[in-house]
Amino acid sequence: MRVYNFSPGPSALPLEVLQNAQSDFVEYADKGMSVAEMSHRSGMFMEIYHETVCLFRELMAIPEDYTVLFMAGGATGQFAAIPMNLLRGGADYIVTGQFAKAAAQEAKKYGKVRVAASSEAENYTHIPEITPDMLDDAADYLHITTNNTIYGTRYTRLPDSKAPIAADVSSHILAENMRVSDFGLLYAGAQKNIGPAGMAVVIVRNDLMGKAQALCPKIFDYKTMADNDSMVNTPPCFSIYMALLNLRWVKARGGVPAMEQMAIERSRLLYDYLDESKLFSSPVRPAFRSYMNIPFVTGSAEIDARFVQEAAKAALVNLKGHRSVGGMRASMYNAMPLDGARALVDFMKKFEAENGEYVRD
Amino acid sequence: MRVYNFSPGPSALPLEVLQNAQSDFVEYADKGMSVAEMSHRSGMFMEIYHETVCLFRELMAIPEDYTVLFMAGGATGQFAAIPMNLLRGGADYIVTGQFAKAAAQEAKKYGKVRVAASSEAENYTHIPEITPDMLDDAADYLHITTNNTIYGTRYTRLPDSKAPIAADVSSHILAENMRVSDFGLLYAGAQKNIGPAGMAVVIVRNDLMGKAQALCPKIFDYKTMADNDSMVNTPPCFSIYMALLNLRWVKARGGVPAMEQMAIERSRLLYDYLDESKLFSSPVRPAFRSYMNIPFVTGSAEIDARFVQEAAKAALVNLKGHRSVGGMRASMYNAMPLDGARALVDFMKKFEAENGEYVRD
Repeated sequence: MRVYNFSPGPSALPLEVLQNAQSDFVEYADKGMSVAEMSHRSGMFMEIYHETVCLFRELMAIPEDYTVLFMAGGATGQFAAIPMNLLRGGADYIVTGQFAKAAAQEAKKYGKVRVAASSEAENYTHIPEITPDMLDDAADYLHITTNNTIYGTRYTRLPDSKAPIAADVSSHILAENMRVSDFGLLYAGAQKNIGPAGMAVVIVRNDLMGKAQALCPKIFDYKTMADNDSMVNTPPCFSIYMALLNLRWVKARGGVPAMEQMAIERSRLLYDYLDESKLFSSPVRPAFRSYMNIPFVTGSAEIDARFVQEAAKAALVNLKGHRSVGGMRASMYNAMPLDGARALVDFMKKFEAENGEYVRD
Repeated sequence: MRVYNFSPGPSALPLEVLQNAQSDFVEYADKGMSVAEMSHRSGMFMEIYHETVCLFRELMAIPEDYTVLFMAGGATGQFAAIPMNLLRGGADYIVTGQFAKAAAQEAKKYGKVRVAASSEAENYTHIPEITPDMLDDAADYLHITTNNTIYGTRYTRLPDSKAPIAADVSSHILAENMRVSDFGLLYAGAQKNIGPAGMAVVIVRNDLMGKAQALCPKIFDYKTMADNDSMVNTPPCFSIYMALLNLRWVKARGGVPAMEQMAIERSRLLYDYLDESKLFSSPVRPAFRSYMNIPFVTGSAEIDARFVQEAAKAALVNLKGHRSVGGMRASMYNAMPLDGARALVDFMKKFEAENGEYVRD
């Protein structure tokens, strides 16, 4: 029986996408081989590659002066690749979670990095207010993490930055509307809203490429990658194919605006209940609540553990919160149907009714 | 209809492995989700990970003082990762093909690199003889490419090196017996004998880790990766799973010795024919002929092109040679059955009979 999988990543993929990939897994179309066996130089794979790029461009309305790259190594690879490609004088980082902090730390290997703002002291329960005086206008770029997977926060408006914004959008790419021209660079690990783990998608403004540091590995050099259709070496072909199936699925369901609408509705089901529950609560300031990742707590580690265990028995899995936050977290990306959120809320209500004696005072 | 796929990589996978992956693709075991959806921190994925490591250790008889790492980015990523981890004073490289040369060029970004020997002037048709006086005993490592995919050559014995040998074994890992203790480090892109593209396997002697250059990206740092079970960040989970299915398949068929025996028989079918054919010939010196990659030519670009085209119609695909060599190339890794080699030879004989007027003089 298929479970509702609330994992923060790798995470649930649409059932139709999995079924589609399954039926073609041994023999793709009438090609006599699996996608997993195709030469990346073959016409059949190039068709897959080009359609994937085109669908990214179409669904995210990517302007012509931006390039879409598929790179191995996930977002953490980009923590190094971004400074190696863009950092010369200095860069600003806004630290709104563990991954944002890791990005800043990694960048320090490659040049001058300044933390312009941080919400670490408040355990990342909000996005700091950014005023123009806090930012270095001459920075090579400003790095932000637009949705913070562990802490369940999101930017509601972008910082007013003169430097190009380089944004980690791993946990809500294709799930929320983004105006690409607001950014110099967007990047995302694939394993949340794109496909299986093992690939990063990078969307980069063309004028930012071609100035990589001398020590940048060839497979991380954006210009070299762009000049070679992301095929400086053998790309993660099967990951690109799975992305394609997922992009087709998003398009067939109305594109990113429809995904965002569903994300708002889906997350509201849970937030509305959290705000009325006497047992569960959200640790995140309402203004900054993510549509994707929703942490919640009871205040008792023992009850939290029991909840996670009993939910799993009810086919609601991977609800344990990150160890740095504790409690629970429901990650609900594009593949999570509204029924999954409803099933979770129904289960929480039942759990609350049965555990009345533990109600917080 | 399934074709015989002679692609150099990504390349054919065993049909049983593909069928196995297909049947579990939507729901793995009774877990209610696909492997592509599993959290890398989950118990179910950790079982997959540990079995994969154990099978690599068992099938390659990897000594205890070596660590097996799964890394994103393929072999080309390792061209940078190896010097970033091992290079301090200087390294020797033996250049026996395009990839070996690319490895040396990439390494120059990170320190002093010396080409100790090269067969480039003879278009890489052989492996140069290496005498001890050609090597720097004090080098941090000696880099070699034990099988050269494009040119179809292989080392028949390892250089007598005092420095640890770092070897690219991408195109014959798990297909030929290797004594791991002869090397400091072995690495392979997955897309030939391990699984789908997008992952590299690194087998590294423990004392060589922990001395990475300061600028080494976190995801390329062997020690950091080893300390975190290759999960510094989300690993390419599906690639690891496919590797596991493939390793189980190798084990069930008698392990690496059986694979090597089959590779010798399979390649001999083609070499024996090439040596007697009046139309086709091998450009590689007999002593250095690869068991995996077999280039062959007719001497006429026009006939070569016609052969490739007609072979494809007969379900023998991806036989075009690399542009730097021309002609044809049959890559036959573990997944290629003897019947595939027989079908190719039969087709070549028929083609030769029908094209007698073009016979070389």
